[in-house]
Amino acid sequence: MNTYHATITITLRKGILDVQGKTVEHALHATDFPMISHLRIGKYVELTVEAENKTTAHSLVEDACRKLIANPIMEDFSISLNELQVENV
Amino acid sequence: MNTYHATITITLRKGILDVQGKTVEHALHATDFPMISHLRIGKYVELTVEAENKTTAHSLVEDACRKLIANPIMEDFSISLNELQVENV
Repeated sequence: MNTYHATITITLRKGILDVQGKTVEHALHATDFPMISHLRIGKYVELTVEAENKTTAHSLVEDACRKLIANPIMEDFSISLNELQVENV
Repeated sequence: MNTYHATITITLRKGILDVQGKTVEHALHATDFPMISHLRIGKYVELTVEAENKTTAHSLVEDACRKLIANPIMEDFSISLNELQVENV
């Protein structure tokens, strides 16, 4: 089994109102940052996964995102995988 | 003025308990994903910023992160900037 490190970025789908992002943007405009706009807040998830190969690891993480980590109705996610170590030498 | 697109990843500092991440990890272990571990949840922020040049843009975003977007006591953040368009042609 190999170990992979995955980073996942989860963003609200276009067209869905990002209340948290709008609030932070208003607060920025009210302080010293009127030049910042289009602020949207999503989630950033890091995890390690054990799998036979990168393809299996990717489909496991994708499955976990779809079932539990993200909300596929309202959110998009993208996964990036890196192999950490090879134990089957 | 140029327009830059910034993506910011905000993660809890090492050693600070990530309650949300632990909860999701336990839920994954209780379902079909015992092979996933070390799950930590952070924030992912996208924004656009207007500035004279990339250095100014970076320092503006860094300042905004330190003052409002992130909690520098508990969180680390990393900023990545891309130029969107050049208006001063």
